[in-house]
Amino acid sequence: MTRRGQFITFEGTEGVGKSTQLANAASTLDALGVECVVTREPGGTPMAESIRELLLAPRDEPVNETTELLLMFAARAQHLHTRILPELEAGRWVLCDRFTDATFAYQGGGRGVPTERIALLENLVQGTVRPDHVVLLDAPVETGMTRARHRGELDRFEQEAVAFFERIRETYLARAANAPGRYHIVDASQPIETVSAEVSGLLRNLVNRA
Amino acid sequence: MTRRGQFITFEGTEGVGKSTQLANAASTLDALGVECVVTREPGGTPMAESIRELLLAPRDEPVNETTELLLMFAARAQHLHTRILPELEAGRWVLCDRFTDATFAYQGGGRGVPTERIALLENLVQGTVRPDHVVLLDAPVETGMTRARHRGELDRFEQEAVAFFERIRETYLARAANAPGRYHIVDASQPIETVSAEVSGLLRNLVNRA
Repeated sequence: MTRRGQFITFEGTEGVGKSTQLANAASTLDALGVECVVTREPGGTPMAESIRELLLAPRDEPVNETTELLLMFAARAQHLHTRILPELEAGRWVLCDRFTDATFAYQGGGRGVPTERIALLENLVQGTVRPDHVVLLDAPVETGMTRARHRGELDRFEQEAVAFFERIRETYLARAANAPGRYHIVDASQPIETVSAEVSGLLRNLVNRA
Repeated sequence: MTRRGQFITFEGTEGVGKSTQLANAASTLDALGVECVVTREPGGTPMAESIRELLLAPRDEPVNETTELLLMFAARAQHLHTRILPELEAGRWVLCDRFTDATFAYQGGGRGVPTERIALLENLVQGTVRPDHVVLLDAPVETGMTRARHRGELDRFEQEAVAFFERIRETYLARAANAPGRYHIVDASQPIETVSAEVSGLLRNLVNRA
């Protein structure tokens, strides 16, 4: 019988290097002969990508907060049930750029959507399915903000933006503190080679354990 | 202060004459000097109509049942909060072609989605908001099926289709039986003039009561 693959998600605020570390993790698994797929949320299947487009499209109509939350979880239901779970059953590891932790962090912590509403949809869509491991790329908000400032953005809303990303970061860290066995916090403010070495080491450990 | 408008939904299986009766109800209200808007589900706002297109678009990818349910309620959240509720607050009556009863009937009764999942999303999206009145256009399934048969459809799946629409009809009738003050069952198998006269009479009563 095929051994079920591991479901590993990569989380963190803007600019912490998620894409780089997803690619690094995939090549680490590759080198160890572990089959894996890299995917992202919202998205990951043609229909879920259509929902993503609908979510991200600029529009005149103000988008209701609950509409946004339900679209996010509609995309997730499609991604999880038609792609992620079948891949895991087939024995492949799934590396996913963001998952439900991002909803708790951005919609919950960032925008103040009550956590119970998110948890209710998490249970509705996922049942008991949760990522086996979450790699949290953590860096002080200033790191990301500095980049934005260099691009000449954020002047007027800078303070609001800092507070927003602080709340997101704090939500991520609080979730990690609640389930330390499942969350792996990586200090993403270190030099990129150091971060990559840590992530590769973590993946090697998970392969040895599996 | 403006008196809040009434929220009236029109329900029933395919071919019972919902569109005709929505138009008839609107002109009845018009004649009585009651301002009203006619809208439909899924849809009713540009964004909700985009979600409708996404739901109805033919695609190779099988659509997960929960994805479909969440998209339906995402469209509903947008429609309810950005259009229906503001219209009601402004004193206009809202006549809506299908609402949450249709989800209970089609997804629940028809396809077997557990009622609790639908009720949970109903509460999440609507809070305590429910239609003030539901006009249920009821006719034996054979009436609709006869049309389909005339169009040369349904041969192979005919029996399945009959059973499917029977379950939908039964769900509608059961919901009406549970809240007789709010549901108004109209026998849609009668001649169209009789049905229209009944619906107009009902609307006149509601205006007198309001």
